[in-house]
Amino acid sequence: MAQITINKPSSSWWIATFSNPPINLIDPDTIGELQDLVTALENDAEVKVVVFRSADPDFFMAHWDVLADKATVAAMPPGPTGMHPWGDVLVRLARAPVASIAEIRGRARGAGSEFALACDMRFASRERGILGQFEVGMGAIPGGNPMARVAGLMGRGRGLEVILGANDFSADIAERYGYINRALPDDEIETFVDSLAGRLASFEKHALVGAKALMNEVTLPPDTVFQHALSAFFASTVHPGTRARGAALIKRGLQRRSDLELNLGRAVAEHP
Amino acid sequence: MAQITINKPSSSWWIATFSNPPINLIDPDTIGELQDLVTALENDAEVKVVVFRSADPDFFMAHWDVLADKATVAAMPPGPTGMHPWGDVLVRLARAPVASIAEIRGRARGAGSEFALACDMRFASRERGILGQFEVGMGAIPGGNPMARVAGLMGRGRGLEVILGANDFSADIAERYGYINRALPDDEIETFVDSLAGRLASFEKHALVGAKALMNEVTLPPDTVFQHALSAFFASTVHPGTRARGAALIKRGLQRRSDLELNLGRAVAEHP
Amino acid sequence: MAQITINKPSSSWWIATFSNPPINLIDPDTIGELQDLVTALENDAEVKVVVFRSADPDFFMAHWDVLADKATVAAMPPGPTGMHPWGDVLVRLARAPVASIAEIRGRARGAGSEFALACDMRFASRERGILGQFEVGMGAIPGGNPMARVAGLMGRGRGLEVILGANDFSADIAERYGYINRALPDDEIETFVDSLAGRLASFEKHALVGAKALMNEVTLPPDTVFQHALSAFFASTVHPGTRARGAALIKRGLQRRSDLELNLGRAVAEHP
Repeated sequence: MAQITINKPSSSWWIATFSNPPINLIDPDTIGELQDLVTALENDAEVKVVVFRSADPDFFMAHWDVLADKATVAAMPPGPTGMHPWGDVLVRLARAPVASIAEIRGRARGAGSEFALACDMRFASRERGILGQFEVGMGAIPGGNPMARVAGLMGRGRGLEVILGANDFSADIAERYGYINRALPDDEIETFVDSLAGRLASFEKHALVGAKALMNEVTLPPDTVFQHALSAFFASTVHPGTRARGAALIKRGLQRRSDLELNLGRAVAEHP
Repeated sequence: MAQITINKPSSSWWIATFSNPPINLIDPDTIGELQDLVTALENDAEVKVVVFRSADPDFFMAHWDVLADKATVAAMPPGPTGMHPWGDVLVRLARAPVASIAEIRGRARGAGSEFALACDMRFASRERGILGQFEVGMGAIPGGNPMARVAGLMGRGRGLEVILGANDFSADIAERYGYINRALPDDEIETFVDSLAGRLASFEKHALVGAKALMNEVTLPPDTVFQHALSAFFASTVHPGTRARGAALIKRGLQRRSDLELNLGRAVAEHP
Repeated sequence: MAQITINKPSSSWWIATFSNPPINLIDPDTIGELQDLVTALENDAEVKVVVFRSADPDFFMAHWDVLADKATVAAMPPGPTGMHPWGDVLVRLARAPVASIAEIRGRARGAGSEFALACDMRFASRERGILGQFEVGMGAIPGGNPMARVAGLMGRGRGLEVILGANDFSADIAERYGYINRALPDDEIETFVDSLAGRLASFEKHALVGAKALMNEVTLPPDTVFQHALSAFFASTVHPGTRARGAALIKRGLQRRSDLELNLGRAVAEHP
């Protein structure tokens, strides 16, 4: 895979490192690689835990590549769930018979936040971790239905602040809200996650899989709501106001290694 | 409207200030004004955010006026949902195509807490904010079904402590429990809420409405449970013990600007 | 009852103190006594609140007695819900028309944590309280479906960390995660719980019962998921890896007053 490098400390423990310069955008190729990875996780008899890391300390996953060719995106064949591949990747990862951990250094926004929310657990660097769903600030409805994830993690009130407010959340507030499991000092997070992953990898796979299946039974939203969000996202992007906001943000630095991308939560509410 | 003053910094941003001296009780007139306001929010094409404030720094909304004429209350015609107007106001506000923010200075108890819980977001003054559902302490079952709201915000355990314990909760503990989004210093809360509301008012209405609708899909309790709570409330108030407790509390200062109203959570468990 | 002593400060307020030396294991006799106690709570006209305490400051309830005769356990007749008596006790306690409080000093692990999670409220000693679901670390799926309880208390992400990670959680982190209502200083917890219980005991029973019933309506998982977990637990214990892990832990000190029992969360991931 070109963007995702898989490293295996053991056959039970996979580490997926994401690198898509300049700012780790999620593009159609990323989705294709994630589909292949999730399929491998579903079928491998030995893997028990997968950790998602970023090669870029400023960006875990910046957000969806808004300049991706719209015809290409619309033409992507549905995944095994019958959904558009982005929704497909998210719901299959959440159901996968393996524990998944997002180790968040840098920004996880938009689709990057959605991906982190589809993982079983999330840990973020106290100094470098930033999470947010900036889409509403650009006039778009988040397509991976983070609404359905944050509802269970932080409740409707804080969830609406995240989704409608479209701002950036530091790791400290993300921890307080339940957006992430814990914030950890930047120089300890990798050790912490390695320790947890090594622990999980040392357990019986049947127990991990069976316990997660029972958790899935009481926590996973129905697939239909992800379909609703994908439809709402595509419909929202054709509004003239949304197109104008997107164009203005691109002019100001969106998609580039820029101050605007570093501070996107603030930037979407500035109307210069 | 006599009790609620609407101020509009812009056509997208409404501020509703509540004033019903001496202690901001919610009475049948309040409900009528809230019905009209929610209907206006449902139908206005431009409003994106509404902020609820109190003119009294000690009372956001004290609680339901227990001396309101029972025949009048029972005779109030149902709202558009078919429910008693109080339940009707709460469920329509939660579903309304606009972001709603409760800015809580002073006490929000009983129906006042229920109203705050029906808003999309809640922020409280660290020094002045107090929330609670004192009803069980008086022998009554809360009629606006705060049970169904706190379940999703703080979980069953803390929710049962709030509902069954019937005590006052400071803004600090309310924040820790998820009862409110955040506690803010009293001299900063208005600036914080203005900033958030101004931000929301600057976004595209279709994106706010669409994203909230998807959140509603996964977080709103079914209307039926609100009907159950209204019935349980009315049934509970006719118990002799409940009548006796209510009468004793009124004698001790309930409904007046009194020490008892300032410390109602403590007072309901004192049995002098 | 031999293991559970009931003390009644008043007819409305029961205190159940658990003592099953050496480490407060839950065995078939414990379940029988808990069934009788829950039945009494269901039928008593006056009791409003029950507090669960431990006579051993190091162990609230250690965990299920893994050496209990398997034939005896399998032959235990189902309770009134039709479920195996352990699932039966948990779901009946959660539905019981009385407020229940777990006062956790010492370790509440495995079935002990499941019991605490079935109580309406949980308070733990900051210095002495430790909670955890160590089962997955031994290769077993937790049988009392703590997954369905923690989902609502702390969300899927932290819940999966607790269940799959199988580690010990201090009272401080348990409070931050929502595993417990609050952590309290060890020398204050009994006073705090007594005060809350006395408060509840002074209220109207019909109001407590009615308000809890409305909370049950929106928070209790369906009984079927508890049946699923019991089946998954029994199936998981016959795996060879699970048997081997159990045997090794017993050799190292499981079920005895040992360093291993004091630090079981750490011990299950050590593979000497």
